[in-house]
Amino acid sequence: MNRSSNEKKVSDVVLPRILHYLRVIQQLARSNMTTISSEELSKIANISAFQIRKDLANFGKFGQPGTGYDVSNLKRYLLDVIGTKEMCNIGLVGVGNLGSALLNYKGFDEEGLQFVAAFDKEESKIGKLCGNVIVEHINNLKESVQKNNVHIGIIAVSANNAQMVADKLIEAGIFSILNFAPTIVSTPKEITVRDVDLSNELKALRYFTAVNK
Amino acid sequence: MNRSSNEKKVSDVVLPRILHYLRVIQQLARSNMTTISSEELSKIANISAFQIRKDLANFGKFGQPGTGYDVSNLKRYLLDVIGTKEMCNIGLVGVGNLGSALLNYKGFDEEGLQFVAAFDKEESKIGKLCGNVIVEHINNLKESVQKNNVHIGIIAVSANNAQMVADKLIEAGIFSILNFAPTIVSTPKEITVRDVDLSNELKALRYFTAVNK
Repeated sequence: MNRSSNEKKVSDVVLPRILHYLRVIQQLARSNMTTISSEELSKIANISAFQIRKDLANFGKFGQPGTGYDVSNLKRYLLDVIGTKEMCNIGLVGVGNLGSALLNYKGFDEEGLQFVAAFDKEESKIGKLCGNVIVEHINNLKESVQKNNVHIGIIAVSANNAQMVADKLIEAGIFSILNFAPTIVSTPKEITVRDVDLSNELKALRYFTAVNK
Repeated sequence: MNRSSNEKKVSDVVLPRILHYLRVIQQLARSNMTTISSEELSKIANISAFQIRKDLANFGKFGQPGTGYDVSNLKRYLLDVIGTKEMCNIGLVGVGNLGSALLNYKGFDEEGLQFVAAFDKEESKIGKLCGNVIVEHINNLKESVQKNNVHIGIIAVSANNAQMVADKLIEAGIFSILNFAPTIVSTPKEITVRDVDLSNELKALRYFTAVNK
């Protein structure tokens, strides 16, 4: 998980846009487009051309006046910036509907992300194959996380159990947590937690819908 | 979906923080806390106290020097800002693992969000109850969206089918789309699309993990 090729730190604010550009550029590359102007990119990505030029200018000179960005160069560079060369091992806790959906999601592998372990407390789920992993009892978490060299822990349990799971992940040596439980987990400073709050996404959408009407 | 009580527009940048504060404040209210300082709020929310004071100052005076924010007042005000008084009707397309997980998610109702329709193209799924709705054939989408007064459409199909589904939702009169497919959908300007890209969340987490190590 070391970053050797590019140590320049992208801020928390810019990174989501970089990932969004990468998504667009990967799609363009699949459609065999070779160049794209910042204006065209702006339309597809729904981000202003000014913002795009500013964000990409931080990483050196890509755009050619008059011809635009070279799609394959830009793709290679963005992939390098966010460092997807090494596989990242993921462990998931909570094999309910959402957990199963994540374990079965097809798009992670090609992005250098792989599930290597999954945990639940319900006996009926233990030993079952879900996606590419066999569900283990949560009591095995520490041992399994260390054995499988898990880098990122995903919390997909209910709000009530999220803090307990976060504590177990941290105790097992995990520094990075993606939390899907609709609650805030308390963690020491050195732990990075990202919350994916699905109802907040809907609320944000509703807010903008209501405002725009 | 009209906003009468508070027409002040929260920006796209600030809104996720407002929703995050609301999540924290709701949690504090459930724990029967009555007041909280911006410093304590900062620790729990993992956002600087300066940023919190700045964000909340936009909405009038809440904090009392020395005593902090009144939890129940702040909760009521934040709920008012994001306008959760009216129920928002949601229609979902794609009843796979992720779609089922969303339909069965317990937390939406109390947030004023409710699923009123779900669609799939697979005959085996049509007519089955999932969460609180009966899955309909995607060919019924337009009729059902209008009959059920759907405000927000969720795309939970594969990347290949996402554009087709977006087109159908828009044709049915939907202006707000939450897209879980790992692809960019093209829509007219008046349509609001929010992308939830789960692999981007993991990539962001990996990026920060790698940088911090």
